[in-house]
Amino acid sequence: MDVAANLRALFDAVADGRLDPAEAERQVLQVVSATSIENLGFARLDHHRADRQGFPEVVFGQGKTPDQVAQIAQAIVSRGHSLLVTRTDATAYAEVARRVPDAVFHEQARIIERRVPEPRGNGVILVAAAGTSDIPVAEEAAISAEVMGNDVDRLYDVGVAGLHRLLAELTRVHRARVIIAVAGMEGALASVIGGLVRVPVVAVPTSVGYGASFGGVAALLAMLNSCAKGVSVVNIDNGFGAAAIASRINHL
Amino acid sequence: MDVAANLRALFDAVADGRLDPAEAERQVLQVVSATSIENLGFARLDHHRADRQGFPEVVFGQGKTPDQVAQIAQAIVSRGHSLLVTRTDATAYAEVARRVPDAVFHEQARIIERRVPEPRGNGVILVAAAGTSDIPVAEEAAISAEVMGNDVDRLYDVGVAGLHRLLAELTRVHRARVIIAVAGMEGALASVIGGLVRVPVVAVPTSVGYGASFGGVAALLAMLNSCAKGVSVVNIDNGFGAAAIASRINHL
Amino acid sequence: MDVAANLRALFDAVADGRLDPAEAERQVLQVVSATSIENLGFARLDHHRADRQGFPEVVFGQGKTPDQVAQIAQAIVSRGHSLLVTRTDATAYAEVARRVPDAVFHEQARIIERRVPEPRGNGVILVAAAGTSDIPVAEEAAISAEVMGNDVDRLYDVGVAGLHRLLAELTRVHRARVIIAVAGMEGALASVIGGLVRVPVVAVPTSVGYGASFGGVAALLAMLNSCAKGVSVVNIDNGFGAAAIASRINHL
Amino acid sequence: MDVAANLRALFDAVADGRLDPAEAERQVLQVVSATSIENLGFARLDHHRADRQGFPEVVFGQGKTPDQVAQIAQAIVSRGHSLLVTRTDATAYAEVARRVPDAVFHEQARIIERRVPEPRGNGVILVAAAGTSDIPVAEEAAISAEVMGNDVDRLYDVGVAGLHRLLAELTRVHRARVIIAVAGMEGALASVIGGLVRVPVVAVPTSVGYGASFGGVAALLAMLNSCAKGVSVVNIDNGFGAAAIASRINHL
Amino acid sequence: MDVAANLRALFDAVADGRLDPAEAERQVLQVVSATSIENLGFARLDHHRADRQGFPEVVFGQGKTPDQVAQIAQAIVSRGHSLLVTRTDATAYAEVARRVPDAVFHEQARIIERRVPEPRGNGVILVAAAGTSDIPVAEEAAISAEVMGNDVDRLYDVGVAGLHRLLAELTRVHRARVIIAVAGMEGALASVIGGLVRVPVVAVPTSVGYGASFGGVAALLAMLNSCAKGVSVVNIDNGFGAAAIASRINHL
Amino acid sequence: MDVAANLRALFDAVADGRLDPAEAERQVLQVVSATSIENLGFARLDHHRADRQGFPEVVFGQGKTPDQVAQIAQAIVSRGHSLLVTRTDATAYAEVARRVPDAVFHEQARIIERRVPEPRGNGVILVAAAGTSDIPVAEEAAISAEVMGNDVDRLYDVGVAGLHRLLAELTRVHRARVIIAVAGMEGALASVIGGLVRVPVVAVPTSVGYGASFGGVAALLAMLNSCAKGVSVVNIDNGFGAAAIASRINHL
Amino acid sequence: MDVAANLRALFDAVADGRLDPAEAERQVLQVVSATSIENLGFARLDHHRADRQGFPEVVFGQGKTPDQVAQIAQAIVSRGHSLLVTRTDATAYAEVARRVPDAVFHEQARIIERRVPEPRGNGVILVAAAGTSDIPVAEEAAISAEVMGNDVDRLYDVGVAGLHRLLAELTRVHRARVIIAVAGMEGALASVIGGLVRVPVVAVPTSVGYGASFGGVAALLAMLNSCAKGVSVVNIDNGFGAAAIASRINHL
Amino acid sequence: MDVAANLRALFDAVADGRLDPAEAERQVLQVVSATSIENLGFARLDHHRADRQGFPEVVFGQGKTPDQVAQIAQAIVSRGHSLLVTRTDATAYAEVARRVPDAVFHEQARIIERRVPEPRGNGVILVAAAGTSDIPVAEEAAISAEVMGNDVDRLYDVGVAGLHRLLAELTRVHRARVIIAVAGMEGALASVIGGLVRVPVVAVPTSVGYGASFGGVAALLAMLNSCAKGVSVVNIDNGFGAAAIASRINHL
Repeated sequence: MDVAANLRALFDAVADGRLDPAEAERQVLQVVSATSIENLGFARLDHHRADRQGFPEVVFGQGKTPDQVAQIAQAIVSRGHSLLVTRTDATAYAEVARRVPDAVFHEQARIIERRVPEPRGNGVILVAAAGTSDIPVAEEAAISAEVMGNDVDRLYDVGVAGLHRLLAELTRVHRARVIIAVAGMEGALASVIGGLVRVPVVAVPTSVGYGASFGGVAALLAMLNSCAKGVSVVNIDNGFGAAAIASRINHL
Repeated sequence: MDVAANLRALFDAVADGRLDPAEAERQVLQVVSATSIENLGFARLDHHRADRQGFPEVVFGQGKTPDQVAQIAQAIVSRGHSLLVTRTDATAYAEVARRVPDAVFHEQARIIERRVPEPRGNGVILVAAAGTSDIPVAEEAAISAEVMGNDVDRLYDVGVAGLHRLLAELTRVHRARVIIAVAGMEGALASVIGGLVRVPVVAVPTSVGYGASFGGVAALLAMLNSCAKGVSVVNIDNGFGAAAIASRINHL
Repeated sequence: MDVAANLRALFDAVADGRLDPAEAERQVLQVVSATSIENLGFARLDHHRADRQGFPEVVFGQGKTPDQVAQIAQAIVSRGHSLLVTRTDATAYAEVARRVPDAVFHEQARIIERRVPEPRGNGVILVAAAGTSDIPVAEEAAISAEVMGNDVDRLYDVGVAGLHRLLAELTRVHRARVIIAVAGMEGALASVIGGLVRVPVVAVPTSVGYGASFGGVAALLAMLNSCAKGVSVVNIDNGFGAAAIASRINHL
Repeated sequence: MDVAANLRALFDAVADGRLDPAEAERQVLQVVSATSIENLGFARLDHHRADRQGFPEVVFGQGKTPDQVAQIAQAIVSRGHSLLVTRTDATAYAEVARRVPDAVFHEQARIIERRVPEPRGNGVILVAAAGTSDIPVAEEAAISAEVMGNDVDRLYDVGVAGLHRLLAELTRVHRARVIIAVAGMEGALASVIGGLVRVPVVAVPTSVGYGASFGGVAALLAMLNSCAKGVSVVNIDNGFGAAAIASRINHL
Repeated sequence: MDVAANLRALFDAVADGRLDPAEAERQVLQVVSATSIENLGFARLDHHRADRQGFPEVVFGQGKTPDQVAQIAQAIVSRGHSLLVTRTDATAYAEVARRVPDAVFHEQARIIERRVPEPRGNGVILVAAAGTSDIPVAEEAAISAEVMGNDVDRLYDVGVAGLHRLLAELTRVHRARVIIAVAGMEGALASVIGGLVRVPVVAVPTSVGYGASFGGVAALLAMLNSCAKGVSVVNIDNGFGAAAIASRINHL
Repeated sequence: MDVAANLRALFDAVADGRLDPAEAERQVLQVVSATSIENLGFARLDHHRADRQGFPEVVFGQGKTPDQVAQIAQAIVSRGHSLLVTRTDATAYAEVARRVPDAVFHEQARIIERRVPEPRGNGVILVAAAGTSDIPVAEEAAISAEVMGNDVDRLYDVGVAGLHRLLAELTRVHRARVIIAVAGMEGALASVIGGLVRVPVVAVPTSVGYGASFGGVAALLAMLNSCAKGVSVVNIDNGFGAAAIASRINHL
Repeated sequence: MDVAANLRALFDAVADGRLDPAEAERQVLQVVSATSIENLGFARLDHHRADRQGFPEVVFGQGKTPDQVAQIAQAIVSRGHSLLVTRTDATAYAEVARRVPDAVFHEQARIIERRVPEPRGNGVILVAAAGTSDIPVAEEAAISAEVMGNDVDRLYDVGVAGLHRLLAELTRVHRARVIIAVAGMEGALASVIGGLVRVPVVAVPTSVGYGASFGGVAALLAMLNSCAKGVSVVNIDNGFGAAAIASRINHL
Repeated sequence: MDVAANLRALFDAVADGRLDPAEAERQVLQVVSATSIENLGFARLDHHRADRQGFPEVVFGQGKTPDQVAQIAQAIVSRGHSLLVTRTDATAYAEVARRVPDAVFHEQARIIERRVPEPRGNGVILVAAAGTSDIPVAEEAAISAEVMGNDVDRLYDVGVAGLHRLLAELTRVHRARVIIAVAGMEGALASVIGGLVRVPVVAVPTSVGYGASFGGVAALLAMLNSCAKGVSVVNIDNGFGAAAIASRINHL
């Protein structure tokens, strides 16, 4: 058992006064980490994350070369973990598919994934989107949540300009254990839903809009200032982030 | 008839070639203006405004000394016009009351006014406010609209966090000819109302909120990005401005 | 009569104590909505909107695929409603034209439309634009207003840098029942017009400019801070939104 | 049973063709709402909220007069509900105490409350604060959560400048079912905690800081951009909002 | 003499009481304007501007089609005026050159021009640029100033990071009657020059930079906050605007 | 002649090779500066400025203690220079008056001054203010300009909401050699004046306004984006800065 | 030796398989931290910091009660460490002085300190301030640096509007090992100094200014965009932060 | 010796009273500068910089044409100086390579360089990057530092979401003499490192992120507000700037 042996050596040095306790601590960290971090040079994979956080490392595709994405994907899959790459594209997928042939690409959601069985969440995550243009972000949330082991219900184009569209679906709204509310423009959907339910609502502002929407800032601010209780917010267009939180809640 | 005489003199000069037409134009402007503008030194009262715009000049109290406010108020009243001073306070009122004894002060709305009969608008202006804290701005709008000759219906504390409060009053909402929607925080009230009615909605963002409401910016942006048709917006806390527009519409 | 039958069943359940009144309410909403909302999966068409708001649902083209736009267009036309698609392009038009052959595309205004007779407004809507570069937004407003049943008068390139251009057209300005003032850069046109007339002015800031115009923010702020009464504002470049408000006013 | 009687009358009118279904719907809403909304003129209390959302209406004290706060407090208490007033002060408390003598005031947290037994949450909510100056916001969160029926663990002054302070308390961190991370300045605490745990983290940026902290904006942006999964965000200084979400999660 | 005849007719109507003086004024404006404004439909050329402002109308090329630019150019040239088109490109130039064959295109400065003799300014305008990357804006200023009848001295790459480069050219700096200081990044050049001379300095922030330069905002703010006297500022990258002011000053 | 002696010593050292030319340069600077800079410890008075820039050093009162202001004032007066302190108050004046008994305080303009004859400017500086609330800033400009040796014409309350007030004064507008245009809110006055004249216009945005005026930012942006030629801008509320530029122009 | 004993117990548990290595790591952290962190309830003092970072914990006074400041101060002094409290005031000092009688208060710099001998830095830290109003921030930097064991040279009122004031002191500038450049308004001082020297420059923007200085943002942006090499930046008004960096550099 | 001869002539003129000392100073500057500044027309090369600042002029490639970059590169190399071009691309490199055949291009870092031996720094500069997407900026820093004569240690993908990745490398962290911390998103890496070490940390925010990262502003603000001591900040993505500072520190 290498880890234990290493730790013992450290400890003896402390006991003998050869090693300062603070220095020992530093080395203990190194020993423990060495077993769970895989260094690819440009990336350090934190394989311990599945244990620590309930789901393995997720790959943020933006700003990485296709080759980097593919190398990381392969390393994750080789450990038997679920693969989830967000903010990616067809070029990266081509590279990933060469190494992980059964990976799947969702173009609208910009996701590459390969699922292995994950612990199931306790209830349904409802993903509500205000308009048709918000669907790509909503799909990023919905697919991410599914890969993480959750049942997902999709409720799209229920923005507040036509309130009846939402009110007519209250049964589905009330059935959810967590709700992800996706909206651009004035982002009022989150407040309206937040006022109707008793479960947590994760609001996702989208960059849908123009002019004074400032790429989603209007919706973001509206959601942060929601007068309804129970609404928390993630970054603009961050469908994945909402799914991660909703999944954590759904797995409690 | 002085104006005509002056104009004739100008014209003769043009006809004789003694005066350049462009210069003549400039002087024509001066002649016509001279009859309608009263120069107090620190202020030029545009008494022609009642004719041109349907309501006399309104006094913006902020940044004026009590004495300045009172002098302007007196000049307006002496012409037999309605008096409306906004963004003012008790100190200015004390000074105004010395010269215009029957002027009235509305503390919450920060308005000094003295009404004379104005042409009546055609319908009712509904002033809807999202929360109790928005009432001062709503009252600025409501009182201003009344002074301008409109019937006003007040509907307060109907924010979207408790949608039933608004839905229960739909009859009053549908009865209005123009609606002023006053809301701070995420400002969603304007969108929800805009989606329910066929009349114009004037949205007033308020500075109610804190943190990322940025003094009303969140509500302002939300209202500008409303996905509902028929919503236009005025400056933050500008209850008077909303009333002026609503009154123009109501007097068409 | 299905709706009535459904309502009766609900009611009986309430009367018998089998159904909670709040649950009944929720189901009433569902029954009523079912008759007016058409669910295309990615979109829920609110066909009731023509009744409720005086004009059928308008399609916001941005962020929708050509196929989505075309499906929605077809569904609207099949109900005999006026078709109005904004912020669209030639690609979407090609797809729409396959299903709605007599639809018309306005390239500069980025509008696809197909008109059916709408109730006529009471007066003329004047669309004033400050500069040549503002014309696309002005045309979005003008064509939208026309589709909605309004007479439109266009007055272009009358910005305040050459005040005479506007002053020379005062007759047309005074003839309008509502005015849409379109301007970029410093957006002063709205204030100058607002000070000259007694009718409502809907100001549209445009993204025309550079540097510290910040994509139309300078004009937006100027318009929100207009010292002239009677000016309300819509989002940057939102010609359609201004038309919707002006049309509501013009149809009062 | 009045509600049923009213509903029946409506229904008969629909069945007879005397009433349009859409109008019936509107009236149904009114009937149902009438039983749960108490109109104080300046405020409409939504007593139904406890049923609908799991906790009664909470009073946002800012911008309300002491008398308004006290009237609302009395109305809530008279229904037997828990009382929670946030963003309030000693002056309002004096007025509340006259009508609700056993109400309690927490000065640092700016809360007035009076507890009645609420359903207990399932686990512990950990409230972690980065610095001493963040404690008022943390206390707003902690006390709010307690009033809503949750067990709370407080962990203060564990900011990332001295990482050992947090690492030394990992046992308490891992014991929580939900974590509220309160931090001003660069707000890094939320990311560091988010990377260590598998439960949801609600991040509260505070306005602690100066200069380019812009009243909490720096922390807000940092938290929205957290590279750690499972972090969602509420408004700056919104301790109560975080508690409401955490409580919803803890009561699932 | 048509103008006079028209004015007389108006006047008679006023004298006879057939015409209201205010209406007369309006018509006078129209008559006078009619002689100087040429309406191209999409543009109203203000040919009076040369008289009123000392230089004919300048064409802002951005947002205009090549055809629009060419039509306006032709109309200006046909009156014998200097032609100056800014923010334009080779495509527009091709179109202009077809109608105004001797027009000249300056690619770096993005200017099309055709000079006719203008009144000469009294002194030299110095155009100082901080870095090589600022030269396009500096050239827009320099060429515009030359077309307007000014002698121009160019002093490029004298930014404050190497102060000696500027100090070594103080003789040229002191010889200027007006100075245009062009700088991006931190824009300190304007302050340093402003502190060395007694003539007016027009500062032009440029969008040169990246990151927190925010497209020239950093330089703009620095110049607005200059601790040196005698520095005024124009819009980001507005070389032409600076030239127009400098030329006005130089022609006093 | 000490300066010469010092310079010679330096030079000899260079000639002998004892001193590096670059080091010599540094010392030459020190020698020359020593004669014109007076070091008070907390301030270094640049008495050379009157020669170099045409007017002595002006004291920016904000952030200085009354004692600091008074010491600097005394040092300036003792050299026989004009005294001009801006952004100051009555407390500082009390201290200044003890040391410079004939100094004058202008409360509205927040200026302390004591005039000595300065070279006279060539023409009149017109200070135009849009509204009564802009007068303090306008007065800062007007008094500063007077102290610097200029004739000033004040034209107040001529904002664009009542265009006639300005048009009626065109004669005075056209008589000016430089115009300072002071306006808050939407700041349109600068553009309108800029389009009417051929002389340079210095625009001063003021912080008059509220909400989305953002303390003068709306006016600032409007002025920077002016579509009129010949308008340059200074910092918000910077009346003095505008006067300094106008005076430089007027003294050319 | 308790620490060693604790570590051994942990280790044995690992070796026996009774304890997971990751859990062991967590406990090692706790054991090591326990010896260096003092928990006052509202604050956790990191006494290890002097060893780890070269200077003991510094107290950020803002947002702490006088009693909290005093308790922390006492705890620090009782360990024999240097005391440095920043952003504090006379009220807090009164409380501190009761427990640490020989503590000293610097009002202008808002610092409470009590020095013990610290390791001396290698050279001189020059603190340069642009204007008199920047001195409080400069003093915060200067005193902090002195308490941390550095020699400090103060060079005040050397802003770029009078460049000679700086150039005349080049000898002192060149003698420094690190330079702290403190400036508000346009913040150009940092760039000018950065271009003259070969040592690191730490730039401190101050909130001195008004209008578009936005509380120091203009200076901050200018400094971040400095075209001179070797300039890094700290938060607005953060004199202490600059001193901490300069001291670290000076102690290398 | 020309410089000396020129200086003598100047001096004689001063001594004879033929030349004003201030004028002499100006000419001294010119004489000294003439020997070190090479004027290419579009650029003035400051060859003195290597002496004055410890490293020759560095070329900022952005906004320069390939030909301009190549001319400057050639001039620098011809003096025997190290060549370093940042923010450049393959097109510019092609042009440079024609004139400086042994220049090297680093695509990821966007750098062209050609090294000559520079004085070696005293220790190691550690470049730590939070994520894989931050590597281009980190490489700009690392290569720049190497060209300037420093030993560089690269530590990539050690962001705070997986704290163990950093803690496991503490030995390398503690070995550095200066640390450059590169991070986008919430930028927390700088604070965490700043809290662990005693050496100066230069933080580089990157534009990695989306939505409310605002192109790196979130990371920038977080770093400016770091609660850790010893952290200063450069512009977003400014890897070179960080290297320049670190190199200055490392060469002390």
